[in-house]
Amino acid sequence: MKIELAKSYGFCYGVKRAIDIAEKNPKSVTFGPLIHNKDEINRLANNHNVGLVESLDEALEHDTVIIRTHGITKDRLQRLKADGKKVINATCPYVTTPQQIVEKMSQEGYTIVIFGDEKHPEIQGVASYSVAAERTFTVLDKSELSALPLGAKVALVAQTTRKPDAYQAIAAELVVRVQELRVFNTICNATFENQEATEELAKKSDIMIIIGGKNSSNTKQLFSICQNNLESCYHIENSSELEASWFAGKENCGITAGASTPGWIIEDVTKKIKELTLTR
Amino acid sequence: MKIELAKSYGFCYGVKRAIDIAEKNPKSVTFGPLIHNKDEINRLANNHNVGLVESLDEALEHDTVIIRTHGITKDRLQRLKADGKKVINATCPYVTTPQQIVEKMSQEGYTIVIFGDEKHPEIQGVASYSVAAERTFTVLDKSELSALPLGAKVALVAQTTRKPDAYQAIAAELVVRVQELRVFNTICNATFENQEATEELAKKSDIMIIIGGKNSSNTKQLFSICQNNLESCYHIENSSELEASWFAGKENCGITAGASTPGWIIEDVTKKIKELTLTR
Repeated sequence: MKIELAKSYGFCYGVKRAIDIAEKNPKSVTFGPLIHNKDEINRLANNHNVGLVESLDEALEHDTVIIRTHGITKDRLQRLKADGKKVINATCPYVTTPQQIVEKMSQEGYTIVIFGDEKHPEIQGVASYSVAAERTFTVLDKSELSALPLGAKVALVAQTTRKPDAYQAIAAELVVRVQELRVFNTICNATFENQEATEELAKKSDIMIIIGGKNSSNTKQLFSICQNNLESCYHIENSSELEASWFAGKENCGITAGASTPGWIIEDVTKKIKELTLTR
Repeated sequence: MKIELAKSYGFCYGVKRAIDIAEKNPKSVTFGPLIHNKDEINRLANNHNVGLVESLDEALEHDTVIIRTHGITKDRLQRLKADGKKVINATCPYVTTPQQIVEKMSQEGYTIVIFGDEKHPEIQGVASYSVAAERTFTVLDKSELSALPLGAKVALVAQTTRKPDAYQAIAAELVVRVQELRVFNTICNATFENQEATEELAKKSDIMIIIGGKNSSNTKQLFSICQNNLESCYHIENSSELEASWFAGKENCGITAGASTPGWIIEDVTKKIKELTLTR
């Protein structure tokens, strides 16, 4: 069986940067998982003594707190600083940008519309920078816009991992709803590149293995792109989930990985697939 | 034959206002036709002593100059004022708005994209307010955008009479091309209303008469909407163009009129159609 990796996959700039920061700061804790990948978080704990806390109360028990790539809410960040913690900000610069835009635009009187998942930590962080919660809305689809009291001036930002065409549709809908629409292209290029490469590979494969955290938004989108192109798609977190039966009768196996999947996991998956299909 | 007028047609706010201003200022001239309607311009000349000049040189020969609804270029306006003319500005407020937006946004470093016809006086006026001609572009279709050197920040305005869906398509295209897109909804509601009412009427008519200047952009769009809905559509400027043969075998005649068509012309057309179809 032929095994092929997507032309672009895996770690993006923000994730590489965050891991680099964590490795240089032993005896610290990250507030929330640094990235959406359990195996990499275990590696940082075991090899670099970087712990993980999930709540503000826990974080306040430590001296050095690393802010993860997705960022945290503004009030939590302020509380950590107010309590004299050493705060190391590993928020991806592409996430800091929409945080700053939301703060500035809300101060200037714009209604804020965020295209993203309101339960995702990135979006909770971004939304928290608005100075006017009553005119800050998060939507996942253009159909949600009609019910919102938008006012005359709207600023629009997107979760970094969203699909451009859905963002375009939301912007187009707003253009005729308001007097002024300010659209900030906060979708990350790395996401585009991984998505395009995944689609290209999916079109010529008869099985696709998508590697990444089960709660990773961008990995789920890679999975969805594959599902649109072929039947046999499997979203796994690591090689232990692979099953030999998936590959029966298949000739071309494509592999791609989300933005928070470390290289060593991808190598491990590739090796395991070779072993499982060795007889063919 | 049944004759029905569209629910909304004819003069908009800006045109009514301009005619009112002209009627109150005899012994003046308008710089360019006040509105796109020859018959109304003749009426103003004959009944109110309001003349018409077509060039700056001609305008400079008069004491009182009325600026027409579509506006004029910034340098011409400045020249008239510098020469001590009494300038009466009848520019539609909905046209003044994009002029001001283009001036401010170009000063703030935005590339300007204007959705409109670069040969139309409204657009020539709006574009003239940009302080940076080298980053000011006028397009009629989203396909023209790919060739433009847009930069990171773009401000988008539309000719007041353009169709919203084409404007949405241009905005959607730009969203993913630039870092920040600022879209101003400068399309005029009166245009929407006349368009919607025309479409509604066209769907239930078997002949449509569209009244308005042959060079009137919004009238041409009403004509185009009718053409999408039925075969027998006629764009006329006044009742003298009507032909009895058009109405042979027709049962439902719809009438609509562009934003610069005076009520007396519409009444005259309606009367003439009744005469032409009297025997039926």
